[in-house]
Amino acid sequence: MKFTIQKDVFVNQAADVSRAIQSKATIAILTGIKITATNSGIYLTGSDAEISIESFLDQTNDLYDLNIEETGSIVVTASLFNNIIRKLPDNKIQFESNEDNSVLTITSGPAVFDLKGQDGSQYPHLPEFDETNQIPLPTKLFKELIDRTIFSASNQENRPYLTGLNLTVNPTHIIGVATDSHRLSRRIIPVQINESVIDFESFTVPKKTVTELSRIAEDDQDLFMVVSSKQVIFLMENTIIYSRLLEGNYPDTNRLIPTSSSTEIILNSDILHQALDRASLMSHQGKNNVVLLNVVDNAVELTVSGNERGQAFEAIKTKEVTGDDLQISFNPDYMKEALRSFNGVDVRIQFQSAVHPMLISSEAPSEVPHNELLQLLTPIRTHHTY
Amino acid sequence: MKFTIQKDVFVNQAADVSRAIQSKATIAILTGIKITATNSGIYLTGSDAEISIESFLDQTNDLYDLNIEETGSIVVTASLFNNIIRKLPDNKIQFESNEDNSVLTITSGPAVFDLKGQDGSQYPHLPEFDETNQIPLPTKLFKELIDRTIFSASNQENRPYLTGLNLTVNPTHIIGVATDSHRLSRRIIPVQINESVIDFESFTVPKKTVTELSRIAEDDQDLFMVVSSKQVIFLMENTIIYSRLLEGNYPDTNRLIPTSSSTEIILNSDILHQALDRASLMSHQGKNNVVLLNVVDNAVELTVSGNERGQAFEAIKTKEVTGDDLQISFNPDYMKEALRSFNGVDVRIQFQSAVHPMLISSEAPSEVPHNELLQLLTPIRTHHTY
Repeated sequence: MKFTIQKDVFVNQAADVSRAIQSKATIAILTGIKITATNSGIYLTGSDAEISIESFLDQTNDLYDLNIEETGSIVVTASLFNNIIRKLPDNKIQFESNEDNSVLTITSGPAVFDLKGQDGSQYPHLPEFDETNQIPLPTKLFKELIDRTIFSASNQENRPYLTGLNLTVNPTHIIGVATDSHRLSRRIIPVQINESVIDFESFTVPKKTVTELSRIAEDDQDLFMVVSSKQVIFLMENTIIYSRLLEGNYPDTNRLIPTSSSTEIILNSDILHQALDRASLMSHQGKNNVVLLNVVDNAVELTVSGNERGQAFEAIKTKEVTGDDLQISFNPDYMKEALRSFNGVDVRIQFQSAVHPMLISSEAPSEVPHNELLQLLTPIRTHHTY
Repeated sequence: MKFTIQKDVFVNQAADVSRAIQSKATIAILTGIKITATNSGIYLTGSDAEISIESFLDQTNDLYDLNIEETGSIVVTASLFNNIIRKLPDNKIQFESNEDNSVLTITSGPAVFDLKGQDGSQYPHLPEFDETNQIPLPTKLFKELIDRTIFSASNQENRPYLTGLNLTVNPTHIIGVATDSHRLSRRIIPVQINESVIDFESFTVPKKTVTELSRIAEDDQDLFMVVSSKQVIFLMENTIIYSRLLEGNYPDTNRLIPTSSSTEIILNSDILHQALDRASLMSHQGKNNVVLLNVVDNAVELTVSGNERGQAFEAIKTKEVTGDDLQISFNPDYMKEALRSFNGVDVRIQFQSAVHPMLISSEAPSEVPHNELLQLLTPIRTHHTY
């Protein structure tokens, strides 16, 4: 293998691909990045057991300044490789492997690095996929769907299907749901998908996969999804993300969304977020990370009860308060994440009682059909001694 | 105690003072910040056993918007206090302590925090000092003296006097020296000091003291130093730093500076720094963090010998090479810190042999008398197998 390429493009693509790689992977070769030179271009591949990312740098793209002298494939330690290429002095890099692909020589200006490697044939094969049923996704909206829900996914491996983003694909809309059973995020986005390409309606994608997709996908580029029974593939201009799906039956979350309320507050999401940001400084000092919200005579207050460091109190500026008085406790960090997903707009918070979930939605619903965000948060039952 | 004050000024002064405070101090009250309201203004105090910082916010300074209603003194946990005041919503803060100073109430706009505290009388007294012999220091130059030497101070407590900055004060110049016995930094700056105020010619200031002084002192503000047999005090416009001195006889380092050389290189400090930055990526992978510098036929090369990850080689662009061929090994991280202190200018590196210290100085010495920077670096003896 021997080729030269423009530095910055290569550094960025190698960084994208390396996001799949775990530096402490138990399978040694998966700590490496695979570099493959073919007659048509350069493939870069990174993988852990769950997710694989492959980028392709096309020989014909002038931006890459790509000159392939010899084809071949080698795997080198990703972290060291990325650190080295980032710091190279020249804007071109030459890569050359020796005959048995045990050493990769990297040359850039006056700098020469010999990196030990393994032959590319040792690297596990990426899964095959059928390119026929490609579902086109609106890139920017789909990234937003991910970013405004995925924080509610569980980190607990005892119910693995809750550690991902559940997607339901319809011709007119896609529903994304994430929940750890204490809170739930649901974002619906409008799409136009030909019914014939929808083979699997509902499936759950691991958190890492959608998080990396959201980081790598560029708003102005096309994005396609191919789903099969066990895996999902996201195709971008230069890059493909392969991922397994999470097994297990995702719960029916529709029945969890409350349809009535006895108390309702309308306020700016940032104002409540900032107040919780302050109040949580005090709640983090206590044994229970709990904030109490009081609705009394249409005034809303936050309280953190006395702990060994002190206590906090805040009057909250609202736009509208209707319904019954209420005292409800919750985890301020969960509430902060839920509020942040509304990006500063006014929100409606609906309560049924101190023991039922709170429902947070935009105060001004979208006029576009199938365009919706809601956050559900379960209260914490406490004995109010304050 | 009760007063109101402009938020940003107070937040910044509290942050400066808190730099002295260790959140895991064994003496519980020293994890706190002491807030004292007097009729003339507000004092803020932070301390660990070694260093104390005190700031004064003058009642008469309009910028502070200070309104003192009741004098008094309270101590509250510094980290929580700083986090809270930073996030307060209004640009004014009101502080009020209860009768026995067990609670400090912080009010800003709609936010109210009650922080548990202790009476200020429980806080240790700061040392007294004699204000007569104040040595005026050129603030910007003195900060530069600190920043370009202190990285060479030792982190090892077995020879405590090496963990600080040794200062020698003369009427015309101040000499700053730091060394961990593997490397040595010396910066001489020109000053004009009346001989009568110099009581103690040579003394050693703890690393933390000078590091914090360099962070807090503002270039355009006056700086004075008062030295006694056991302590040093730095006086700034709003802030005083009190510090103990390090005990023990600082070694005579003048005799360590070589006066002759057999090989000499002149090059740009940044070029060698960047090359070492790359080469050290590979040297960090091996058992010995060593880079080999080769001078052969007036060409200079860096090599990192083969380790389990690979090897590195770099040709170094020089401006002048004179004298004998040479092979010398050194710690690239130490060399990088020494080079960085020259801030990108051309430097002269002088060698006696592979086992004698290298001397690095500016290629163009200052025309100002008593204005000098030099870095000394001991080589590492290795068996060159590469």
